[in-house]
Amino acid sequence: MIEDKPREACGVFGIYGHEAAARLTYLGLYALQHRGDESAGIVTGDGKQLRAHKGLGVVSDVFTDEILSGLDGHLAVGHTRYSTTGASVLTNVQPFVANCKGGPLAIAHNGNLTNTSALRKRIEEEGALFQTTMDSEVIVHLAARSQADTTVERIVEALGQLRGAYCLAFATKDQVIGARDPYGFRPLCLGRLDDAWIIASESCALDIVGAEYVRDVEPGEVIVVDKNGMRSLNPFSAPRRAFCIFEYIYFSRPDSRIFGDYVDMTRRKLGKELAIEHPAEADIVIAVPDAANTAALGYSQWSQVPFEMGLIRNHYVGRTFIQPSQGIRDFKVKIKFNPVGGVLRDRSVVVVEDSIVRGTTLRQLSRMIRQAGAREVHVRVSCPPIRFPCFYGMDFQTMGEIIAAKQSVEAIRAHVGVDSLGYLSKEGMLSAMPNSAEDYCTACFDGEYPVEVEKEMAKLRLEG
Amino acid sequence: MIEDKPREACGVFGIYGHEAAARLTYLGLYALQHRGDESAGIVTGDGKQLRAHKGLGVVSDVFTDEILSGLDGHLAVGHTRYSTTGASVLTNVQPFVANCKGGPLAIAHNGNLTNTSALRKRIEEEGALFQTTMDSEVIVHLAARSQADTTVERIVEALGQLRGAYCLAFATKDQVIGARDPYGFRPLCLGRLDDAWIIASESCALDIVGAEYVRDVEPGEVIVVDKNGMRSLNPFSAPRRAFCIFEYIYFSRPDSRIFGDYVDMTRRKLGKELAIEHPAEADIVIAVPDAANTAALGYSQWSQVPFEMGLIRNHYVGRTFIQPSQGIRDFKVKIKFNPVGGVLRDRSVVVVEDSIVRGTTLRQLSRMIRQAGAREVHVRVSCPPIRFPCFYGMDFQTMGEIIAAKQSVEAIRAHVGVDSLGYLSKEGMLSAMPNSAEDYCTACFDGEYPVEVEKEMAKLRLEG
Amino acid sequence: MIEDKPREACGVFGIYGHEAAARLTYLGLYALQHRGDESAGIVTGDGKQLRAHKGLGVVSDVFTDEILSGLDGHLAVGHTRYSTTGASVLTNVQPFVANCKGGPLAIAHNGNLTNTSALRKRIEEEGALFQTTMDSEVIVHLAARSQADTTVERIVEALGQLRGAYCLAFATKDQVIGARDPYGFRPLCLGRLDDAWIIASESCALDIVGAEYVRDVEPGEVIVVDKNGMRSLNPFSAPRRAFCIFEYIYFSRPDSRIFGDYVDMTRRKLGKELAIEHPAEADIVIAVPDAANTAALGYSQWSQVPFEMGLIRNHYVGRTFIQPSQGIRDFKVKIKFNPVGGVLRDRSVVVVEDSIVRGTTLRQLSRMIRQAGAREVHVRVSCPPIRFPCFYGMDFQTMGEIIAAKQSVEAIRAHVGVDSLGYLSKEGMLSAMPNSAEDYCTACFDGEYPVEVEKEMAKLRLEG
Amino acid sequence: MIEDKPREACGVFGIYGHEAAARLTYLGLYALQHRGDESAGIVTGDGKQLRAHKGLGVVSDVFTDEILSGLDGHLAVGHTRYSTTGASVLTNVQPFVANCKGGPLAIAHNGNLTNTSALRKRIEEEGALFQTTMDSEVIVHLAARSQADTTVERIVEALGQLRGAYCLAFATKDQVIGARDPYGFRPLCLGRLDDAWIIASESCALDIVGAEYVRDVEPGEVIVVDKNGMRSLNPFSAPRRAFCIFEYIYFSRPDSRIFGDYVDMTRRKLGKELAIEHPAEADIVIAVPDAANTAALGYSQWSQVPFEMGLIRNHYVGRTFIQPSQGIRDFKVKIKFNPVGGVLRDRSVVVVEDSIVRGTTLRQLSRMIRQAGAREVHVRVSCPPIRFPCFYGMDFQTMGEIIAAKQSVEAIRAHVGVDSLGYLSKEGMLSAMPNSAEDYCTACFDGEYPVEVEKEMAKLRLEG
Repeated sequence: MIEDKPREACGVFGIYGHEAAARLTYLGLYALQHRGDESAGIVTGDGKQLRAHKGLGVVSDVFTDEILSGLDGHLAVGHTRYSTTGASVLTNVQPFVANCKGGPLAIAHNGNLTNTSALRKRIEEEGALFQTTMDSEVIVHLAARSQADTTVERIVEALGQLRGAYCLAFATKDQVIGARDPYGFRPLCLGRLDDAWIIASESCALDIVGAEYVRDVEPGEVIVVDKNGMRSLNPFSAPRRAFCIFEYIYFSRPDSRIFGDYVDMTRRKLGKELAIEHPAEADIVIAVPDAANTAALGYSQWSQVPFEMGLIRNHYVGRTFIQPSQGIRDFKVKIKFNPVGGVLRDRSVVVVEDSIVRGTTLRQLSRMIRQAGAREVHVRVSCPPIRFPCFYGMDFQTMGEIIAAKQSVEAIRAHVGVDSLGYLSKEGMLSAMPNSAEDYCTACFDGEYPVEVEKEMAKLRLEG
Repeated sequence: MIEDKPREACGVFGIYGHEAAARLTYLGLYALQHRGDESAGIVTGDGKQLRAHKGLGVVSDVFTDEILSGLDGHLAVGHTRYSTTGASVLTNVQPFVANCKGGPLAIAHNGNLTNTSALRKRIEEEGALFQTTMDSEVIVHLAARSQADTTVERIVEALGQLRGAYCLAFATKDQVIGARDPYGFRPLCLGRLDDAWIIASESCALDIVGAEYVRDVEPGEVIVVDKNGMRSLNPFSAPRRAFCIFEYIYFSRPDSRIFGDYVDMTRRKLGKELAIEHPAEADIVIAVPDAANTAALGYSQWSQVPFEMGLIRNHYVGRTFIQPSQGIRDFKVKIKFNPVGGVLRDRSVVVVEDSIVRGTTLRQLSRMIRQAGAREVHVRVSCPPIRFPCFYGMDFQTMGEIIAAKQSVEAIRAHVGVDSLGYLSKEGMLSAMPNSAEDYCTACFDGEYPVEVEKEMAKLRLEG
Repeated sequence: MIEDKPREACGVFGIYGHEAAARLTYLGLYALQHRGDESAGIVTGDGKQLRAHKGLGVVSDVFTDEILSGLDGHLAVGHTRYSTTGASVLTNVQPFVANCKGGPLAIAHNGNLTNTSALRKRIEEEGALFQTTMDSEVIVHLAARSQADTTVERIVEALGQLRGAYCLAFATKDQVIGARDPYGFRPLCLGRLDDAWIIASESCALDIVGAEYVRDVEPGEVIVVDKNGMRSLNPFSAPRRAFCIFEYIYFSRPDSRIFGDYVDMTRRKLGKELAIEHPAEADIVIAVPDAANTAALGYSQWSQVPFEMGLIRNHYVGRTFIQPSQGIRDFKVKIKFNPVGGVLRDRSVVVVEDSIVRGTTLRQLSRMIRQAGAREVHVRVSCPPIRFPCFYGMDFQTMGEIIAAKQSVEAIRAHVGVDSLGYLSKEGMLSAMPNSAEDYCTACFDGEYPVEVEKEMAKLRLEG
Repeated sequence: MIEDKPREACGVFGIYGHEAAARLTYLGLYALQHRGDESAGIVTGDGKQLRAHKGLGVVSDVFTDEILSGLDGHLAVGHTRYSTTGASVLTNVQPFVANCKGGPLAIAHNGNLTNTSALRKRIEEEGALFQTTMDSEVIVHLAARSQADTTVERIVEALGQLRGAYCLAFATKDQVIGARDPYGFRPLCLGRLDDAWIIASESCALDIVGAEYVRDVEPGEVIVVDKNGMRSLNPFSAPRRAFCIFEYIYFSRPDSRIFGDYVDMTRRKLGKELAIEHPAEADIVIAVPDAANTAALGYSQWSQVPFEMGLIRNHYVGRTFIQPSQGIRDFKVKIKFNPVGGVLRDRSVVVVEDSIVRGTTLRQLSRMIRQAGAREVHVRVSCPPIRFPCFYGMDFQTMGEIIAAKQSVEAIRAHVGVDSLGYLSKEGMLSAMPNSAEDYCTACFDGEYPVEVEKEMAKLRLEG
């Protein structure tokens, strides 16, 4: 459920070598909106200059035909994000663009750096002006201050100073540069469309433009595309990999291929492991749509309990929905889901959910399912209890709001008000993954952070 | 699929006896948007006057908190519609409101009259001014010209002159009046929330406000609610009933109860009948989401071919989506659906679709499914071929665009490009229905129109 | 000063026989905005249909190039008005358009009818629907209900039932019809541009489109223009004329020619008469800009007291200006005028003002002039004290707000806080007029109303 | 006339020590809009942070009550400007705000620097990022890079590197700092309102908020206001003064006091000198309103030729006015002015204009005056021919467009089409000035530039 779910900041997209660069980027961002749908921006380059348009809202609201027509150029980078609120919000819409020594430079960033404060303090002291509070601006400052000869070298020098998670797409007036941090926290893939090269957060953005998936951008790899074609640099290495396991559990689209494999396949295996660990004597299996659909199918197929669609999701949900006064119980959930009486009545129901953060929505949902006539409600969650904050880009609430940080499974079950509650074990989760267990970051479940975090950031999150 | 589907004009909602009448109507309309999401309006009454707000767009865009706060009153009627385009479009947004002898009168209409031209010509000749091209305005004129004593009597006198399909919600400053045509083409139900009475196109609008479903408004019935409570009149009768069977097949929400039964149940039975009539040697069954989901589940359960989710529907589709230049094949479908490679690859696939109008989208979709690796594609449609236009409120294209009007099933199969194509028979369809066969209008399949149509209207549609 | 001044409702414009009918009407309305600048509308006809666009705001905000391009046709009528506020305000923007027996009909109206309530009650009883509260709609209803054969005859029959003030411009799809009430309260003139005929409230609207002023439309005259050219009907007569003298004093533009003569000339004579009746021992004469400029020049030339510009008017005044908290004294006046210190310091000043309604603004202005250093302030007003409301189209406040209705000149002087105050006498005013005295309506000064008024309307205004 | 006139970029305003700082700044900007009315911005400080709002449009459109209420703080700086067009236009709206070592800093700038390119190039090379193309950003970069201890010292160090014209208002979260360049090109004055200190481009901005004019900010002076009160620094000196004489001729408001004297007084003397140098045998004197009004009065009083108002200026002129097709001659002038037939007919007319840049508008205006019946038209201009571009803030067109750069007075007379044309001599102009002749910059008349200009800038303007 939306407000209970971790929200990652962003999707990034870059393309070099296509006349319709802006329009293809628009489509790529459209396909990446599940990663953040509150603001979007595109910057194009035509060999002489950069052109930018950014705005608040979903992609199709931010861009009009006229605006796209004005974004000339054969290269582009784009960004879509879950934006924070506040007066200065438009300033913080990406891509960030600045003029510097080598000419104008644009940057789109997905992930979260863990040493920004120190970097920012240092260069501010040296006389730098800051326009935003974004990590991206720090990266551009670092590149601008480098004394290296070329833009690529300056960017590599800047990246060398960063700690944390990043997938980046840079544009200069005649180059597109992609980069992924050495741990590989977030997904980034490389695609091909005729003579053009594309980088994108997920492969679903390649599909929509009809591009071919070539391979993932490797952890620590820097991709440079310009008139000389594509070349790959590998300036950075790391002691290990740290793929965000949450991308598989919830965040990425089921039709995407990330970290080398299909998301849909992995989710199905999560459902199977869940059925093995937590079987249920029930009449039907339903999912909390849409994210848990595949796991629920997996659960159903293994357990042989029939799969049904017991919840209808309303697709008109918008951000500005007006809440009526007290009168309506469980309103927030009703506005998103309606139970199907004919399916639920007098049934014992397994509800498969992908994850639980605060538990509030699930509590309302369970009550609604019961009121629709369900005899028993058994919740099955396709990952372990989330108990620690994420410092690498998942926007979990602070510790105070994460229900499993302080409560036992039994206490959560009682709070949510269901007949039984089963979480997939960490071992079960890892066994469903296509890569070896040590390649994943599972910090939100076990608190083992692969990359050190600045003290103040950690404090804020852990105590918050 | 959206642009191939018949679109009925509207959803209506009325409530009497609740302080938050406007806000509850807002929610009711929100739940009815699948019946038309391009404009919306609410009119409230407080015993002294009517207040109105109408606009183009989805419900949550048309109304703000401030606007709803201004719509005082304990009674309200609302309307949501699929609106036509053109300069005068705002004028045609419902509810229609006018001042007349008995005071201000508002009307919300779902359905299509078949004798409007004659009625309109007659009263125009007598000196009436028309502001719109809507059937609703004709109805109000008829009521205003009646010499009967009360508003209810004037409305009944007006309704007596109408031919065709209507579900109506009227508001005066102190009454809400609901009416359903004697044939009962469109659904209309009656609900209760504390002391308030509600009428709504579908029961999902009762669910969202937490109201209890009482019963359907009967064909030919007029419901009057005011300070004296609710009373029912039955001034009209008809030789038969003519429930729109398309409401069950595609239009109503699966979680609604219409014509006395759950939509979801009926769709499941359509799927079962389809499996009996047109089995397929296949590995998996998938639906064209979301409307065909339940029928596909029914097909799967009967045939024991596993149900899978092979198409992901993108929920960011908006009206203003910008089409990039030629470059991208099957673009219109790609923007709505993405095939899941892991599910489809090397599989023989049954695709369940609820209906086919033009066939264009299905053709693109089939091609996309094949490109995702499907070995065979078998389309199964949960109703017979649509071959005739609807004059009672379904906005099918004209005859020229209805593919089955002129082509055989084999020709359609070849056009769509699939390995096999099976339509449910009329008998199969009717056997899945909860009422007896003669209670349904099946004119779009067999051309037998229950209510006569004005010549010019018929000509326009049949030749168009 | 703006908020103290009577505001007439409207300016009207009509043109037949020019390809750029919409654009010329746009210009004509632009020139007539001093008669009302809060809403505007244009309706065009092309022989087949009418097209309309209306909106709130100044003319250049209501119309864009694209909108004008969509208003095809060789004939047009337009309207600009000082609109009332409230939720239903857009509904009341003119021209009013309706479909009726003879086809679509549009009407633009300047003036105020005095028997609307009775007319409206009668036809509502007969079954008419009303969309607005405008007099114009009543007129169209009357025409639609006529059994006469042609649109022109039906309009003449309707006009015969009206009492009060009107200048009207009608458009059908192939005719433009102009009409002025038999008393001739408001100005209306006839112009020629190549083969096209134009009717307009004031001649300044002819000047801006480069048209030639032909003559005034006569009181009681109906002008019909169509493919057969222009013809004049004179179906109505009246016992006398009743030109609104306020049009000369304040309302019309100085560069217009109305009631047969130049406004500027008349105002100059008002200034001269004022100087004769109320001389002043002073150093300089200044005007309250811009309306009193010409009268002040007339005063200066006759009295030989030098004319100076002692008040600068700010041209950025808009409707939505935000008032700061208490802090700033005389804020409303400061936002419009700034005194010129170098001109006023140590001078004895004659301030010429065209009229006084409430006196509030003049009081603030006088204080501001004194603070700028003026030694003495002598106010001279170029008309008599306004003591009665207007029922024919000037939007004076109700009696309670008209200062001279209850207070003597000396009391007003003391209230305004000036050294002397002189009003022009009724005789002096009439002697400055180009026509004979009995041709003018001077009801706002003497209470002698040329045309009877419905009781309820009179009561409202006189007591209010 | 508007499009022929030089347009200076901006008006600035700053206030420290008032609870309603934002609202008073709003009023101050409102009064300064004649200096630039296409964008506006306000930044407030409350001791802890800065808040900003900026937008395109006139002041009353950019700010709403809600926006002003959100701009908390006891100090504020504001800016209004004639903005350039283009996609990035919003970025260039002032005040410019950035975060730097000492905390956030805002700057509002009026004037034009002449060594920006060199400064910019130098700091870009050192690693600075630029967000805009404004001089203001360069100034902030210079301050941020200073190693001095306090913000004031850093600003003074930055100002020391600037060449050209500037009047500046800075805001930090707890200080307001004003500065004027050592030559004093642009006006800047100091005012007092209760305990608050104000700096403003012209004294009319003090009048509107009810503040007292204290004195001009001196050339080279830096004013610092904070909780310790106001203090004055004088770190810079210059070999001479260079007051922009055009501020007196056209740009400043007549009711302002600049460079130590009233604008109105000086314009009156320009008119007197003009009457002495270029008398005319004529019946009347008229002005091109509003800027030339005072000079025309001066001309009339000295020459004893009566002053009349022969041109009515339309106050509804907006930026977006739509031009009809070819049909209407002299359209651009007609939309702004209408001649008063009664005043001009058969008269020999002296038209006083303040200055001529391109001559196009005057040519149309003269033709229009003749068509209104004037027998003779004699144009008198209250300054010498403009022959050189301005590098210090007046936005003249490039040389190619300045008519007097290449043509003789006789040629201009013939082009404009008038009976005689007289320009005031440089000597006459200087003799009307309140200060000694060598204190003025008269470069636009004689090409003697007081401050050196970067080569590329000069080239662009002189050849353009």
